[in-house]
Amino acid sequence: MPPFDVPEGDPFGPHNLPYGVFSTPSSPRTVGVRLGDHVLDAGAAAGALGSPYADLLARPTLGPLLAAGRTAWSDVRRALTAWVTVPAHQEVIADFLHPLPSVELHLPFEVADYVDFYASENHARNVGQIFRPDGEALTPNWKHLPIGYHGRSGTVVVSGTDVVRPSGQRKTPADAAPVFGPSVKLDIEAEVGFVVGVPSALGRPVGLGDFREHVFGLCLLNDWSARDVQAWEYVPLGPFLGKSFATSVSAWITPLDALEEARLAPPERTHELLPYLDDTVPEVEPGGYDLRMSVAINGHEVSRPPFATMYWTAAQQLAHMTVNGASLRTGDLYGSGTVSGPTADERGSLLELTWNGRDVLELPDGKRTFLEDGDVVTLSAWAPGPGGARVGLGDVVGRVVPGDR
Amino acid sequence: MPPFDVPEGDPFGPHNLPYGVFSTPSSPRTVGVRLGDHVLDAGAAAGALGSPYADLLARPTLGPLLAAGRTAWSDVRRALTAWVTVPAHQEVIADFLHPLPSVELHLPFEVADYVDFYASENHARNVGQIFRPDGEALTPNWKHLPIGYHGRSGTVVVSGTDVVRPSGQRKTPADAAPVFGPSVKLDIEAEVGFVVGVPSALGRPVGLGDFREHVFGLCLLNDWSARDVQAWEYVPLGPFLGKSFATSVSAWITPLDALEEARLAPPERTHELLPYLDDTVPEVEPGGYDLRMSVAINGHEVSRPPFATMYWTAAQQLAHMTVNGASLRTGDLYGSGTVSGPTADERGSLLELTWNGRDVLELPDGKRTFLEDGDVVTLSAWAPGPGGARVGLGDVVGRVVPGDR
Repeated sequence: MPPFDVPEGDPFGPHNLPYGVFSTPSSPRTVGVRLGDHVLDAGAAAGALGSPYADLLARPTLGPLLAAGRTAWSDVRRALTAWVTVPAHQEVIADFLHPLPSVELHLPFEVADYVDFYASENHARNVGQIFRPDGEALTPNWKHLPIGYHGRSGTVVVSGTDVVRPSGQRKTPADAAPVFGPSVKLDIEAEVGFVVGVPSALGRPVGLGDFREHVFGLCLLNDWSARDVQAWEYVPLGPFLGKSFATSVSAWITPLDALEEARLAPPERTHELLPYLDDTVPEVEPGGYDLRMSVAINGHEVSRPPFATMYWTAAQQLAHMTVNGASLRTGDLYGSGTVSGPTADERGSLLELTWNGRDVLELPDGKRTFLEDGDVVTLSAWAPGPGGARVGLGDVVGRVVPGDR
Repeated sequence: MPPFDVPEGDPFGPHNLPYGVFSTPSSPRTVGVRLGDHVLDAGAAAGALGSPYADLLARPTLGPLLAAGRTAWSDVRRALTAWVTVPAHQEVIADFLHPLPSVELHLPFEVADYVDFYASENHARNVGQIFRPDGEALTPNWKHLPIGYHGRSGTVVVSGTDVVRPSGQRKTPADAAPVFGPSVKLDIEAEVGFVVGVPSALGRPVGLGDFREHVFGLCLLNDWSARDVQAWEYVPLGPFLGKSFATSVSAWITPLDALEEARLAPPERTHELLPYLDDTVPEVEPGGYDLRMSVAINGHEVSRPPFATMYWTAAQQLAHMTVNGASLRTGDLYGSGTVSGPTADERGSLLELTWNGRDVLELPDGKRTFLEDGDVVTLSAWAPGPGGARVGLGDVVGRVVPGDR
């Protein structure tokens, strides 16, 4: 009998091995690898096994591992896989497994620049119809480039962090002047976040085919949004305070290597793509990922957004983000944009689920249009893995709390 | 005769003392203070004088000084003033003065989040008329809040760094589909940047009156802009690749304490302000600064933007940026937005100076609508100082170079 056991079919089994940063009451932050409902102290295990990767893993952040590059990522993953599956290694590492409830999980890396995209056609059409009912749902540029903007990296927080309801200006057509107060349209955006490991040089675009050389892995991301603040402020320079108060990410970063079976081709494009975005040529990988997401409020599922339906891929977003010569840094994070599928129960925001408050969501604990104080929002997801197994992504959990004022 | 001499009236005399980070061929990066056409190795001087501030100054970045807070900022400045003016100290520090041409200047701090505002009414009206000729020049929110958005902090570069002409998508009404190539409307934006020293807690707004507790000082900033890229991409989420390829800042950060004589009241507002932005109440400082800016191309002055005309102040921008609970970090940088005065020769961008290319600027070396490869752009500025002296801000110099493709 092995010294520890992960149940058959556990979405965090040895085929997954996502990375995070944890601490315990008696030990400081260090890199952890999730295995079932335990966290492996990866640096301590590496040290005990005499692994050359102890230097990348016995760190208070994922930064050095992220910066180490694709070959190191694969080598470390291969080593970890051996440690958790080969009996002789299992004996050694069993001492470095901590039950999840006994540790505190932290933001796993320092976020450099944070960019958020807008890559779901269903989402963009819904938002366009809601905010610009008299115009075309999609702006003329939407099918030609992955629209994105920079967000606030300093307010990216780890799953479990409370989110203070933001105050701000809002103005409805009925108001003669803007009014100030706590947002009355606090919303979520269910997204996937991509984590850049390897930097690039200023002035040098990163091509579509170099996606896997620069991007280490992905996480779930909740781009909290104050719709009333956003609607008043966003013309002409885009969202600012309606988004900048908090962005929550999962504590676990799933390496791309764990998602080989989840890769798929993106939906067919309706418009010809410029060469730097053209992923239909044979030498470029398809770029899509089959991630099945779920949104729950207070434990009640309200939506199942399908990431496979995204129009623009993460590789295209990376190519676009750098085509002007903008450089990448280790720790850059970019969000996919809200993931919404074609059906009403696949929408990734309350804005869409309630059509900006027109419709009401019936939850076991009451009706909702937007979020109430005390609401706990949980994003979760899984992807197809090897042999029918599921690859679990880390949850993003956040509770809404009122501000002081 | 003192061991060193700064000419009477030098804008970088002992009344100024801006901070930067320099290195020499034989010594690594450390904090420098500009005095005339020399740089004082501040940490080495502090060490030789037995100053308690050596720990804040003998560092490769301004970060620790920025984080130290208002009391420390004033104490360090008082000490530096004594070192450069009291003969006994002058003897000691003379050994630690390096001629400017002998040092390399670096980005003086790690930029955390970078935000850019849009606070000049003249600029916003000009841009509105150019980009939205059929609508109101100012959007309905403009007089109610300082409009801003997040930029890319990873591409903030120090003065002297070449700027590679960005490529990107553009589409004019005459184009059936977007075309790709090097920007044909590369522009500048003459701005002032404000540097945050003291962080704030997530969920806690920073009030108007706390501006000087959090903001250490200011610099000049050139927010390079590819107007053709920007025009095609910016609806609905704002500027992205049209700006993210480079933002240049001066190597010198002028502390607010050096600008006491330059403080003034902002222009009268035409709309009532919500309380968190209302700087007309007596207990709040006026918030404006009298900075006289100059824009030159290849040494030829093309504009003199007056910062005193800005509608929104840096204190209002800070209060707005945090009113939703967004936290500040040491090293946050925010730009004023392009500074444009009311007259045609006071405009801070070529977009405005040439009215989007309709008019031509006659320079000694030829005609310009937008920037040509090889052009060197220089922003400079001064402010009124004590006893009629000028306080010089550090120049921002950048040369446009073609991309590889």
